[in-house]
Amino acid sequence: MIENDVFHHPLVVELLDETRTLWALGHAMSLMGWDLETNMPGKGVTARSEAFSNLAVLQRNLLLRDEIVKTVDKLSEGIEELDDYEKGVVRVLSREIRIARALPEELVAKLAKVTSEATRIWSEAKKRNDFDRFRPHLEEIMKLVREKAERLGYDQHPYDALLDLYEEGLRTRDVEEIFSSLVPTTRRILDKVLSDDFYPRKHPLEDFSYDPERARELMKEILLKLGWDWNRGRLDESPHPFTMGLDVDDVRITTRYEGKDIRRALYSVIHEFGHALYELQIDRRISMTPIGGGVSLGVHESQSRFWENMIGRSHWFLKGVEEIIAKYLGAVAEHSWLELYRYVNTVRPDLVRVDADELTYNLHIYLRFQLEKRLISGDAQVGELPELWDSGIEELLGIRPKNYSEGVLQDIHWSHGSIGYFPTYTLGNLIAAQVWGKMRSEIDGLPELVEKLDLQPIRRWLRDRIHRWGATYPPSSLIQRVLGERPSTEHITRYFEWKYLKLPDELRR
Amino acid sequence: MIENDVFHHPLVVELLDETRTLWALGHAMSLMGWDLETNMPGKGVTARSEAFSNLAVLQRNLLLRDEIVKTVDKLSEGIEELDDYEKGVVRVLSREIRIARALPEELVAKLAKVTSEATRIWSEAKKRNDFDRFRPHLEEIMKLVREKAERLGYDQHPYDALLDLYEEGLRTRDVEEIFSSLVPTTRRILDKVLSDDFYPRKHPLEDFSYDPERARELMKEILLKLGWDWNRGRLDESPHPFTMGLDVDDVRITTRYEGKDIRRALYSVIHEFGHALYELQIDRRISMTPIGGGVSLGVHESQSRFWENMIGRSHWFLKGVEEIIAKYLGAVAEHSWLELYRYVNTVRPDLVRVDADELTYNLHIYLRFQLEKRLISGDAQVGELPELWDSGIEELLGIRPKNYSEGVLQDIHWSHGSIGYFPTYTLGNLIAAQVWGKMRSEIDGLPELVEKLDLQPIRRWLRDRIHRWGATYPPSSLIQRVLGERPSTEHITRYFEWKYLKLPDELRR
Repeated sequence: MIENDVFHHPLVVELLDETRTLWALGHAMSLMGWDLETNMPGKGVTARSEAFSNLAVLQRNLLLRDEIVKTVDKLSEGIEELDDYEKGVVRVLSREIRIARALPEELVAKLAKVTSEATRIWSEAKKRNDFDRFRPHLEEIMKLVREKAERLGYDQHPYDALLDLYEEGLRTRDVEEIFSSLVPTTRRILDKVLSDDFYPRKHPLEDFSYDPERARELMKEILLKLGWDWNRGRLDESPHPFTMGLDVDDVRITTRYEGKDIRRALYSVIHEFGHALYELQIDRRISMTPIGGGVSLGVHESQSRFWENMIGRSHWFLKGVEEIIAKYLGAVAEHSWLELYRYVNTVRPDLVRVDADELTYNLHIYLRFQLEKRLISGDAQVGELPELWDSGIEELLGIRPKNYSEGVLQDIHWSHGSIGYFPTYTLGNLIAAQVWGKMRSEIDGLPELVEKLDLQPIRRWLRDRIHRWGATYPPSSLIQRVLGERPSTEHITRYFEWKYLKLPDELRR
Repeated sequence: MIENDVFHHPLVVELLDETRTLWALGHAMSLMGWDLETNMPGKGVTARSEAFSNLAVLQRNLLLRDEIVKTVDKLSEGIEELDDYEKGVVRVLSREIRIARALPEELVAKLAKVTSEATRIWSEAKKRNDFDRFRPHLEEIMKLVREKAERLGYDQHPYDALLDLYEEGLRTRDVEEIFSSLVPTTRRILDKVLSDDFYPRKHPLEDFSYDPERARELMKEILLKLGWDWNRGRLDESPHPFTMGLDVDDVRITTRYEGKDIRRALYSVIHEFGHALYELQIDRRISMTPIGGGVSLGVHESQSRFWENMIGRSHWFLKGVEEIIAKYLGAVAEHSWLELYRYVNTVRPDLVRVDADELTYNLHIYLRFQLEKRLISGDAQVGELPELWDSGIEELLGIRPKNYSEGVLQDIHWSHGSIGYFPTYTLGNLIAAQVWGKMRSEIDGLPELVEKLDLQPIRRWLRDRIHRWGATYPPSSLIQRVLGERPSTEHITRYFEWKYLKLPDELRR
């Protein structure tokens, strides 16, 4: 019997005994995923994929056993008797069971097969600028994803069913509401920023070459300043930076060193640190349970974006790390902190989402959201995508891709079948701004703390408000509960106006 | 349905479908074990242990499902209809089922708990030279291991049941027979070696310090010369070198760089290479099946010892690598290949098994074998161990430990509950000498090939004779089949006499 001082209801305790094996499988599969990106010899991929798909089926079968399903049903009937943590366990498991039941094993297996092949083809097609090569695969994916949406069920829009997979409870109309205010705000601010010269379109430091060995040392020191504990985490290298939480005491992040434009490595590290801190600060009494991880992609992204943008790209932080950067990358630091600030905050309409700045980023998401919604409702066809993409991005940013590779083929997500995923990025940006707004009103002297790199009060605030709860509350309830309001564009608007319209005058003085 | 061109019997094909999940779980657990030693942040150990023990129970439960047990029983009844590969699958699964059934879950869980605690205590006790601290834990382990032996069953000696866990079919009387000839032979040769000065007791190069960074480069080049494919394997670092085969295309070895006495790192790499090559050369058509791994600890050790001793410590190999060593470790190579040969072949009575040379090594195993046999039969008690150990090693090697740390507390094995494991080391040495004898009579110009580092014919011979079969045949049948005789001391005696008595005169000329 699992001993704990959080869960008391005997059926919940029994349930947690049963689900411990699911947790263990999840732990193993997370490690397999991490290893695949960081360590695995190239030819190991066949066995790794085979092992992964076998364990995914096993996980599903274990979840749908009577011992779990019946207990969850029973607990759901008397949900009022349970405390918040226990309710969380029942909510998370009910949701997982509902999803697993809705999607027949054959559909899951077929999607896994089709997307695995499609990812390989996408990679080739992107290299060769050949949309037609990818097109039939994306058509097949869209067909299967539409079937998935139908099987999952929805009230208003089939896209709702997909959004919910990545962000519990998020609906199409919520996302529409967000963009209906965020898009015009962004364009209004962007016009002003571009007509001014404070935030440059391009900065000379983008071409600065660095020694990866020195950069590795720099990142270690930056992580220590952020509060990293090497006994509870690792920093490794992978082509695409990511975070993997294996347990509250084992969270691993990665970055990459390209030898040029150090901010790409630096802000990956700070971004992933934000994800990692979330996992590291979950109440350890709920670790290894169904509520022992981050609650949703949107809330997770809010934590990474908060550290990357609100903290990491602030002029206070750059004042704080100026000397550390100088220590490892002398030539960069011939520039003042103000110049570093301008370097890490260039603003320009860019065709590629992952290279987009903080301000224009959400416009990229808006384009994808519009297209996905139309594809899923049948209002647009895969064959029309290239033209819809190009005209869409031109309308939003005034630039047009010269090829598919920097246009419709740029993202890996669709080849993975991850439709409904993109909006969580913008949701994360919104929540990050909300956290920032709330925190500024509650922590005295926040700017000075950031400048002194005295970040413990910030980490503690995030832990007490958000992190410790794990998945106890559904994402929007968590935000409502801890920030006092639902996700909205109010804070991000205020933040953008301050950063892009007011701050330049202050800093120019 | 798994497609293959090796397995035809419909029930076997069905069985392999069922056992694929067991393979996947094994893959995951192997990775977890590898990661624990190489990468895991220190505090991750709690979650890793919890995940591991959960998955071990799951593995057991999956193995004992009707779908597997009944099919295995059915196939056992008509075993003559099956071909060798199919028979192998049934044999391996029957054995696993028999062992899993014999050992109740509570006993397995208790042993896991007791040994996990004991390993921690052993480590402390060894540091503090405090046998009494470890004694009650070892007593508890011995009690449980004796129960294990009784439950597993045996014909003649309870120790048979334990030997069989590590080396299928090996019995106490086989091991007694081996040592009854190997011990006097070894002591006879050792006396002569010690009275001569060709193989020194100590060599000045043992004190030579090296730069770990240069050593890392050296090992990479040595591995390439041995035939390593970096797309199918890795070399990492861990306190205790080991090999982990995750799949025929993903085999990982480790070593350690202590900064002094380079042979310790070098021969770890060559030793682990031998283990790895076995896993890498198993017929890929049987990978991911119950016969897709090395057949036993003894046969595995024969492969590592073959590369470490017969190849790696030969004067031919040292002639071959002299220049490579000079390239990375200049100062070492001021010594001629003959001096390098004498350095890596020092012979001296040493108290510590892991520091023992090729010749005296088996005497250390003999001591452990005698003690284990007596402990298991009840003929000796844990409390008597220190005195039995000290007098035993004194009788064999003429030296007496000054403390427990270099005596009875030196090995980790007993704290793991691994009783019956040690004899597989000597069995491995025997088989390595048999392989060497057979190979010399079959490959023309073997010495010249080793000297030229043209090792492909050796790798191919090992693949065709031994590796490709995986666990298709039981270990002793495999040896009988491919080497034409059962494991015996005949070849190792001949090899020792040649290396230690005849070769010095040739090399002195």
